[in-house]
Amino acid sequence: MDISKHGEEIIINPGLEFARQDILNLEPYKPSKEKCSIKLDANESPYDIPLEVKERIWQRLKREKINFYYDPSCDELREELSKYVGVSTEQIFVGSGSDEIISDLLFAFAGPGRDVIIPVPAFSSYEIFATVCGARVIKVPLLLEQKEGFWRWDLDVEAMKKHFSKEQPQMMFLCYPNNPTGDYFSEEKILDLIESFYGIVAVDEAYFEFGRKTFANRLSKYPHVAVIRTFSKVFSMAGLRVGYAIAHESIINQLYKVKLPYNVTLFSQIAAVEILKSLEWVWNLRDELVKSRNELKAELGKMPGIRVYPSSTNFLLCEFEKPRDVVYEKLLEKGILTRKLNGEKLENVLRFCVGSPEQNKVLVDALSQILAE
Amino acid sequence: MDISKHGEEIIINPGLEFARQDILNLEPYKPSKEKCSIKLDANESPYDIPLEVKERIWQRLKREKINFYYDPSCDELREELSKYVGVSTEQIFVGSGSDEIISDLLFAFAGPGRDVIIPVPAFSSYEIFATVCGARVIKVPLLLEQKEGFWRWDLDVEAMKKHFSKEQPQMMFLCYPNNPTGDYFSEEKILDLIESFYGIVAVDEAYFEFGRKTFANRLSKYPHVAVIRTFSKVFSMAGLRVGYAIAHESIINQLYKVKLPYNVTLFSQIAAVEILKSLEWVWNLRDELVKSRNELKAELGKMPGIRVYPSSTNFLLCEFEKPRDVVYEKLLEKGILTRKLNGEKLENVLRFCVGSPEQNKVLVDALSQILAE
Repeated sequence: MDISKHGEEIIINPGLEFARQDILNLEPYKPSKEKCSIKLDANESPYDIPLEVKERIWQRLKREKINFYYDPSCDELREELSKYVGVSTEQIFVGSGSDEIISDLLFAFAGPGRDVIIPVPAFSSYEIFATVCGARVIKVPLLLEQKEGFWRWDLDVEAMKKHFSKEQPQMMFLCYPNNPTGDYFSEEKILDLIESFYGIVAVDEAYFEFGRKTFANRLSKYPHVAVIRTFSKVFSMAGLRVGYAIAHESIINQLYKVKLPYNVTLFSQIAAVEILKSLEWVWNLRDELVKSRNELKAELGKMPGIRVYPSSTNFLLCEFEKPRDVVYEKLLEKGILTRKLNGEKLENVLRFCVGSPEQNKVLVDALSQILAE
Repeated sequence: MDISKHGEEIIINPGLEFARQDILNLEPYKPSKEKCSIKLDANESPYDIPLEVKERIWQRLKREKINFYYDPSCDELREELSKYVGVSTEQIFVGSGSDEIISDLLFAFAGPGRDVIIPVPAFSSYEIFATVCGARVIKVPLLLEQKEGFWRWDLDVEAMKKHFSKEQPQMMFLCYPNNPTGDYFSEEKILDLIESFYGIVAVDEAYFEFGRKTFANRLSKYPHVAVIRTFSKVFSMAGLRVGYAIAHESIINQLYKVKLPYNVTLFSQIAAVEILKSLEWVWNLRDELVKSRNELKAELGKMPGIRVYPSSTNFLLCEFEKPRDVVYEKLLEKGILTRKLNGEKLENVLRFCVGSPEQNKVLVDALSQILAE
């Protein structure tokens, strides 16, 4: 760099020299690129959308013009979602995956000088984008307790409330059911938190369809709640990036100010509209995955040296007596990719999602062999 | 909201109550949804990508699995771009349109307590995302001068330098050629600014292909420059949201930390790869649009009461003696949508992009009729 002629130092690493300090300290989100024959690491659906739905998308795409910017407010998709969710189109905002909903909520309602309260372990995007938006991140560990013979993760309401303030609006994330722990938090605790909170409460319902509990029908009572949903799980469209928020219209209006102007592609909008016209396929898949999850949980529960946490999602969190890195590597040797998570109480844990019945059988056989060794 | 039982006020408008003050003041980006038969308001290509390219994308899509999250680092597309641009894959970062490149650069290198310097008028996303990231926006008006018989917009180097600081890294945007004014700034002035600047200089080359001047081949001399490109203009893929950055690897590495984890859809990555295999079509389109632009400029130049600014893009900025709102409305009555811009020196200006030869003829006929009235 030629600013040396001004008597300055030559810049070797402009990225390191000029990045914000908090960004320098941030770890990039790096999903595994390990080769595998059975991919169970990212809570995806094991099946692609039906070819007939793809054909409908293609027929429509041939008529649409890719050269034009496409609808920035996703009107047609919001119409379909309005019917699916049972709220008005003005209460729906569509984004590029639930990730963009999370980041847009933070940009509008958190940011410098504000707190974001996250019960952990939680979905990693909350902390990443809370940092990116310049807010202060407050992580409160979940309680891990034995109740009625089961180990359950739940909210530490008192510890969370210690960080509540009425001075400055805050933001809080509640993942319902929680990723990566797998189950719902107590409704009673959530209501207690919501009723005491001054600011926006983001309730992430990415896994809504598996358990069907929701806060979307309580927005008139709790207008400061914003529900987050996605097409990446039971709708089997993770590759297309469509998520949405359900919230009070005044919250939605702020999201339009901070979003990327054209945040959802033409193709993704069309695809989401078409999959919403094939809900029977979606609900059948949901039923299969719930059945498979229950069977898988029962099978794993019989094995020695493993604790399987309750799940209301399409994935299971499992704690091992053996070092989990050994289990992870041995599964990978057999072509099965699972997820290692970092954080307190997760040291000996793996998370994996429910695959097809054939894939689940391979997983069970592999695990019983590994745990018996 | 039930927090009334805690003796609190009932919240009527949570969006207004809890949004950040600077976001409350922000105007959302609202593109026109006016019905029209000739759309010239958004600098788009007038032609869709060839059906044979769409067919190739479709054949590939049938084999790809939409249910999985797709490559977060766009490896295949970066390989193709590496050949197209002539830099290494490590110097390329792909995002959801140039909008995401702009916002990611700001989140990584600007943010609270930092300045973003923008010569105006400029592409509106710079100011929007500089505000969203919490930075201070410094707008410096361009000079509008008559040179060699032409009116030209250029950088006010002295006014810009007054805001330069060595205390804290800053960011600066230079749109090259500039949207909405249409032409390149003087290279000499840009080099002067780059060589005096402490921080990242974002050079937005969204319209690169029309004039082919670039800073992408000077990154070894100016490692603090980040070049921004897009597939939304001559590549005719505005609806699919693909943009990219070309920069020093240490800059690229920071962008991976702030981006949406899966920022570019499966479909958009495939489509961009396929259009890069049909470069002959792209360059033919480029030649047609440049020829049409020159003809259109010549035609308009003959009309009374209109000043047409020089252009190295696929659009023209025109100043009218008649009130521009009248011209805009009369064009819209004839089915032609153009763009009204706001800002100093833009009060009587319309911007419109080059359409097909047939569309351009309709525009010329309409304008000559309106200006003669």
